[in-house]
Amino acid sequence: MSLIVMKFGGSSVGSTERMQRVARRIADYREAGHDVVVVVSAMGDTTDDLIDQSKLLNPNPPAREMDMLLTVGEQISVALLSMTIDALGYKAKSFTGWQAGISTEAVHGKARITDIQPRRIFDALESGHAVIVAGFQGATDEGEITTLGRGGSDTTAVALAAAIQADVCEIYTDVDGIYSTDPRVVKCARKLGEISYDEMLELANLGAAVLHPRAVEYAKNYNVKLVVRSSFTQNEGTSVKEEAVMEQGMVVRGIAYDKNVARISILGVEDIPGVLAQVFGALATSGIDVDIIVQSGTQDGKADFAFTVSLTDKDKAIAVVESIRGEVPYREVTSEENLVKVSIVGAGMVSNPGVAAKMFKAIYDLGISIKMVTTSEIRLSVIIAAEPAQDVVRALHTAYGLDTAEQAFVGGPQDRR
Amino acid sequence: MSLIVMKFGGSSVGSTERMQRVARRIADYREAGHDVVVVVSAMGDTTDDLIDQSKLLNPNPPAREMDMLLTVGEQISVALLSMTIDALGYKAKSFTGWQAGISTEAVHGKARITDIQPRRIFDALESGHAVIVAGFQGATDEGEITTLGRGGSDTTAVALAAAIQADVCEIYTDVDGIYSTDPRVVKCARKLGEISYDEMLELANLGAAVLHPRAVEYAKNYNVKLVVRSSFTQNEGTSVKEEAVMEQGMVVRGIAYDKNVARISILGVEDIPGVLAQVFGALATSGIDVDIIVQSGTQDGKADFAFTVSLTDKDKAIAVVESIRGEVPYREVTSEENLVKVSIVGAGMVSNPGVAAKMFKAIYDLGISIKMVTTSEIRLSVIIAAEPAQDVVRALHTAYGLDTAEQAFVGGPQDRR
Repeated sequence: MSLIVMKFGGSSVGSTERMQRVARRIADYREAGHDVVVVVSAMGDTTDDLIDQSKLLNPNPPAREMDMLLTVGEQISVALLSMTIDALGYKAKSFTGWQAGISTEAVHGKARITDIQPRRIFDALESGHAVIVAGFQGATDEGEITTLGRGGSDTTAVALAAAIQADVCEIYTDVDGIYSTDPRVVKCARKLGEISYDEMLELANLGAAVLHPRAVEYAKNYNVKLVVRSSFTQNEGTSVKEEAVMEQGMVVRGIAYDKNVARISILGVEDIPGVLAQVFGALATSGIDVDIIVQSGTQDGKADFAFTVSLTDKDKAIAVVESIRGEVPYREVTSEENLVKVSIVGAGMVSNPGVAAKMFKAIYDLGISIKMVTTSEIRLSVIIAAEPAQDVVRALHTAYGLDTAEQAFVGGPQDRR
Repeated sequence: MSLIVMKFGGSSVGSTERMQRVARRIADYREAGHDVVVVVSAMGDTTDDLIDQSKLLNPNPPAREMDMLLTVGEQISVALLSMTIDALGYKAKSFTGWQAGISTEAVHGKARITDIQPRRIFDALESGHAVIVAGFQGATDEGEITTLGRGGSDTTAVALAAAIQADVCEIYTDVDGIYSTDPRVVKCARKLGEISYDEMLELANLGAAVLHPRAVEYAKNYNVKLVVRSSFTQNEGTSVKEEAVMEQGMVVRGIAYDKNVARISILGVEDIPGVLAQVFGALATSGIDVDIIVQSGTQDGKADFAFTVSLTDKDKAIAVVESIRGEVPYREVTSEENLVKVSIVGAGMVSNPGVAAKMFKAIYDLGISIKMVTTSEIRLSVIIAAEPAQDVVRALHTAYGLDTAEQAFVGGPQDRR
């Protein structure tokens, strides 16, 4: 008998049939004697519909009122799911975020969880109920309703699992685990049996949308064992934990690629001390995340450097750079789109020489030039032209011995909240 | 400068335009310097839609989960209304029932308010906000979400007005006040300037759907001054208070009629002591409300008596009477439908002889026979055949000098929750 946290996203409960399938799964766990705490997101389009309704009345609504509005989406989900479990003959009790004892910072739209007091959850478990908790929400100590922002329901699930010391936190989604790369691009992508928190964090930050980085970070900090699995199959899924066993010498665990990249180059910068601090300070103040930074050697007292930002931030970043031309004189600023960042991730990379060389050779063999490189202990990323990126991913997947004969299961559209 | 509670029903906020009209009204009060606490119901069909959704998953859902589900309707209303007020440039803060400090009994679906702790309401008023409170809901001391059942949002408004000692509680609806009788039946019905709590209570209990009896009772007990007015016009409405001024000798204030009536007669009952207690005890146990009871004189040790119930309870009432035939022997039980109860209401009736005689004469002049009569200090009701009931109402309206030349304003469909 275990204590299990299960998290279901909005598309997993998006119709009567899906809601019933989720209820059946919970009932099966109860039947097997497990104690179950379930975290649910808002159903299907509920959140978007509410946002549309609000925009008609106020194009720029106060964040506090937006939280009051949007949290009803999850409240509807938990009430309906509890009723559905009841219809199967099992006891269930739904809780809003504040009822579940989830305290957050006093920030609207993107609060962080500060504390969880799970007394009512334990009471309900003890009296034989499946506990159904609204994801994505909490309340401040003053009783103001808040939402958690990015990664919301995943984070609720992991934080609850930590607070009640659950044996496992299962994240149900529409793919049946974490793959060595995107199965839509590489047909022979391999489902991983295990992956470490750090590897998962790198992959999540690189745009593998299955888990939100904040939730992975939380799981790592509190050592919560995660399992990512499909809500549509009984397949086993992928375990995310501290130390993942390396399968048959797989040094590289996963390959990610991100199309949302633009490169900005500042050429002929007066090499005065503190230039980098000034440029990137200004970008940070404007809320622009900079990813890779490369500075080439100084010549005649002038330096060139380049950095990448997300494509959506490109124009804003150029404007910032132009706005500080007075303080930081330079010759010109240029930009480039149609780029892709391809990354290999693996905890064993640091102790295995030649991993980087193999990547560069595979890309060279395809006749593709690398525009930028960046490394961490467990990751190596390159920026290349967008066009041949999928070929590069496939080649790397083969080069690092990740290809498998099995076909990946991919469900409906991605399901993120 | 006053402290005003305003209550808007679901149809008053049922569209973008209506929501904006309500927001404008609130903004005008703020502009005039008033402090405003607003109670809102769920928009239009929200509640029905949620009920439909739940029935697909569980035809007989637990009451606790139904309360979790249905209370989102009002939470959506208050958030959207606050945003709409914000868009007009005024500060507004929405509150759920529990946030507004509304405590209720631990009963789901029909809880009564036990206490209101309006600290957060006062804080928000002090900081210059219009306070927008979700009607129809509260929470138990354990933090379970509850709904108030019948008369819900009206009762929330009156109870809040009592708790914060508001100067007035305005109930906005789709008619522009309380009328001397149903303006759809009698074109020359008169809008009353004032009416007493007791008169209003009688009219409300007689089926005048503008105010719920529970809310009127609450207002009477806490001496809250009510004003019933239209959300579609600026007309003045009707004040409901302890002592209402009698206009130009109008002894009778209003005429109500109720078509939902059935008469049941028990004939040839053995006149043993305690028969009435046994019959009406059995009916009460079955949850059947009995209205008028008439016992005719005993003959040969046998008695006949008759009583009225609502039409919907008729078959159930007959079954109850048949089930106790063993303990209470009688010759036969008969029933009659197609009846109407016509009532005249007026606080001055008790001190004005001849009021009853005038009613009987008016009905006699129409050639209609009276089947049953019942009286209270401020009310006189008769049961007559359904067919000529509207003629009777018109004749009585004229006989008691209630006719007016003005045309009544009647808005959209009735708006009750």
